[in-house]
Amino acid sequence: MPSPLNVGLIGFGNIGAGVVRLLHEHAELIAERCGRPIRLARIADIDTTTKRDCPDVTAILSSDTDGLLADPQIDAVIELIGGYEPARTFVERALRAGKSVVTANKAMLARHGADLMAAAPKGASLLYEAAVGGGIPLIRAIDQGLAANRIRGIRGIVNGTTNFILTRMEAKGVRFKEALAEAQKRGYAEPDPTLDVNGTDTAHKIALLAAQCFQQDIRIGDIKVEGIESLTPTDFAYAKELDYKIKLLGIAKSESPDGPVEVRVSPTLLPASSLLGQVPGVYNAIEIDGEPVGPTLYYGQGAGPKATSSAVASDLMALAACKGNQEPPMRLRIPVGKKNLKPIEDIVTEYYLRFLVTDKPGTMAALSRVLGENNISIRSMIQHGRERAENATVILITHAAREGNVQKALQAIRALEVNKSDPFVLRVEEV
Amino acid sequence: MPSPLNVGLIGFGNIGAGVVRLLHEHAELIAERCGRPIRLARIADIDTTTKRDCPDVTAILSSDTDGLLADPQIDAVIELIGGYEPARTFVERALRAGKSVVTANKAMLARHGADLMAAAPKGASLLYEAAVGGGIPLIRAIDQGLAANRIRGIRGIVNGTTNFILTRMEAKGVRFKEALAEAQKRGYAEPDPTLDVNGTDTAHKIALLAAQCFQQDIRIGDIKVEGIESLTPTDFAYAKELDYKIKLLGIAKSESPDGPVEVRVSPTLLPASSLLGQVPGVYNAIEIDGEPVGPTLYYGQGAGPKATSSAVASDLMALAACKGNQEPPMRLRIPVGKKNLKPIEDIVTEYYLRFLVTDKPGTMAALSRVLGENNISIRSMIQHGRERAENATVILITHAAREGNVQKALQAIRALEVNKSDPFVLRVEEV
Repeated sequence: MPSPLNVGLIGFGNIGAGVVRLLHEHAELIAERCGRPIRLARIADIDTTTKRDCPDVTAILSSDTDGLLADPQIDAVIELIGGYEPARTFVERALRAGKSVVTANKAMLARHGADLMAAAPKGASLLYEAAVGGGIPLIRAIDQGLAANRIRGIRGIVNGTTNFILTRMEAKGVRFKEALAEAQKRGYAEPDPTLDVNGTDTAHKIALLAAQCFQQDIRIGDIKVEGIESLTPTDFAYAKELDYKIKLLGIAKSESPDGPVEVRVSPTLLPASSLLGQVPGVYNAIEIDGEPVGPTLYYGQGAGPKATSSAVASDLMALAACKGNQEPPMRLRIPVGKKNLKPIEDIVTEYYLRFLVTDKPGTMAALSRVLGENNISIRSMIQHGRERAENATVILITHAAREGNVQKALQAIRALEVNKSDPFVLRVEEV
Repeated sequence: MPSPLNVGLIGFGNIGAGVVRLLHEHAELIAERCGRPIRLARIADIDTTTKRDCPDVTAILSSDTDGLLADPQIDAVIELIGGYEPARTFVERALRAGKSVVTANKAMLARHGADLMAAAPKGASLLYEAAVGGGIPLIRAIDQGLAANRIRGIRGIVNGTTNFILTRMEAKGVRFKEALAEAQKRGYAEPDPTLDVNGTDTAHKIALLAAQCFQQDIRIGDIKVEGIESLTPTDFAYAKELDYKIKLLGIAKSESPDGPVEVRVSPTLLPASSLLGQVPGVYNAIEIDGEPVGPTLYYGQGAGPKATSSAVASDLMALAACKGNQEPPMRLRIPVGKKNLKPIEDIVTEYYLRFLVTDKPGTMAALSRVLGENNISIRSMIQHGRERAENATVILITHAAREGNVQKALQAIRALEVNKSDPFVLRVEEV
């Protein structure tokens, strides 16, 4: 039997236990498929006493992360502690020591990824299939399956918590808070769900995908992010009437090979019949449009120990399959500092605008005039009966308009006497 | 600059021209991504005069396939002539000469794949990303992204021609022949569409996927195949009423690691809200269910020079990325002769049964009695007004039943006096 790939695991929580379980249960299959076994040699975690749902690893579990990182026997390190620090430091130390690293830590990568890749010496890889889309083999699809393509665009539902909440709001007509409470009750949302519902987690993931696809040093701070907290049952009712679904999308696109890249995260109206629009509950789906391949879509479970351990193990197997600890043939380095982003005000898309206005003659004329003055033309309009004594909700869908113009128009509309509430904005994506 | 991967192309039709175009237009991107250029050194085709929609290749085009195969400069051969022979002979000669082969030829692979893989000496790979699902990087997803999983099942829409026809029949209420004529007019169906509409092409592809996923020598002859020619507008109307879509599915599954594999192709009712049910027009989508990853789905264009050239180029790039012409780390060998298939009569699924029966008292009782005697229980039934003077169409959806029992029941029903036409059978798949 050839020598095993010796692996050290840092971070022994729910996901870590899933990885231990998979490496144990599928040990034979894994060894057969990569030509040598993957051997879990050490585990480091602050908590060495809690019983986890996996085989007994008492003999290799300790709180000695330094020892693990310094162990010359360890070929590769799995980082599953999450967050920026100390994860970043551990990953950098492992790479500098010539060990490859497998991580699911999208927050760390979206802030420090390019620097960490640059710090890795030849022979040490930083692999992160588990960081985006859970078990969906997306990083490999981009790196290998679509290798000959110029990527034109990515649109992704990459956060299961928010997709569950949106699916519930749509199906049950409930408010955001109720849907969130249900997600928490089912274990689909954290006690503090802020980073999910405000779009940050989606932005972490779209930053990674955009950096990989466009080979630019795109990080979390470069991305305009809007969350789902302000959506109301009214929005879902109007979206349905207009034959749309509402999804939290991460979007990255570039119109020409050397043109600027547009990256953003926002709740978005999608045609009800589109595949992305149909993605239910906690599932993830990512559409990648390449030239010449055209649109392709990848769907699966975006989180949880099962999906994540599948992705982590695929990275370990790629390392194990390389003879003599060579690097696997993946191109996951991002040129540090190289960046050409489209200013947010230059973005052109269609808009869903919700206004609360005085319901009297002249109101629509006032709204239309402001929009017209800012080069925004209206594609459709809905106004139903009155909601309060004197005010009415008006929904407008615009034709493609420039974000800068829309912001200017909204500024002007806020100042109108007929306007009674802060206008609410969603983007619209046609297929 | 490192030495290029020298490639010979056999078969210079529509797809071949697409590959030439892509290798030319993305030459720089390809060389950068795999660390060395891919150089198209020779093209062989019987037709050396027709002008193709690609850069001028007069200098390297000839009808001398033998010369191409014997050329020691050629590292890898692209086979794009299709069909069994002479494709098989060319591929075998190339492999035996130590050249890797990239092919889109699912028919050849579904008949001879395992033998060809076995004939390939160390260092020569047989890659076929383009043979299933066009540009969808599916073979790599199974081989690498899902490498740690035990695959439990595959369900795929892998023939764009039939999916276009079914989509039209559903949307327009037209008959099979009209939808086929439209597919031909648009270039989505061949002048002779037999192998598409009778399910053979789908069976070729599901044979390849099943062999890869279950590591068994599953070939085209092992698969029970039903086509879409007998579907009527009535079936689509009833499917809609029952909230189903009708898709031509290739299915392969295995309940336990060493259990028998069930492989079949048939038009199938799928829940209208399922992603597979929503796949429109000429698109392909394949759902792969793995343990532990759960269900994943892959979607994209399944045919045409653009999608196919993307897949062919990804295989060439995998070869080029290997230093010293080593094999890329893919496990695409099938153990010749190893096979454990579930007998078709043991398959258990739900059924859609369409009968034309005499519309008089006692008819339903007669049908129900035969079904009951064969352990088939009815989940729902539809019967609308009379279609002919005395006959009525009856649709039954069964609970899960054994195929052998269903065939026995249909045999008995054919003999009933009340039965006026050959019963028509579709399978039903829940999500």
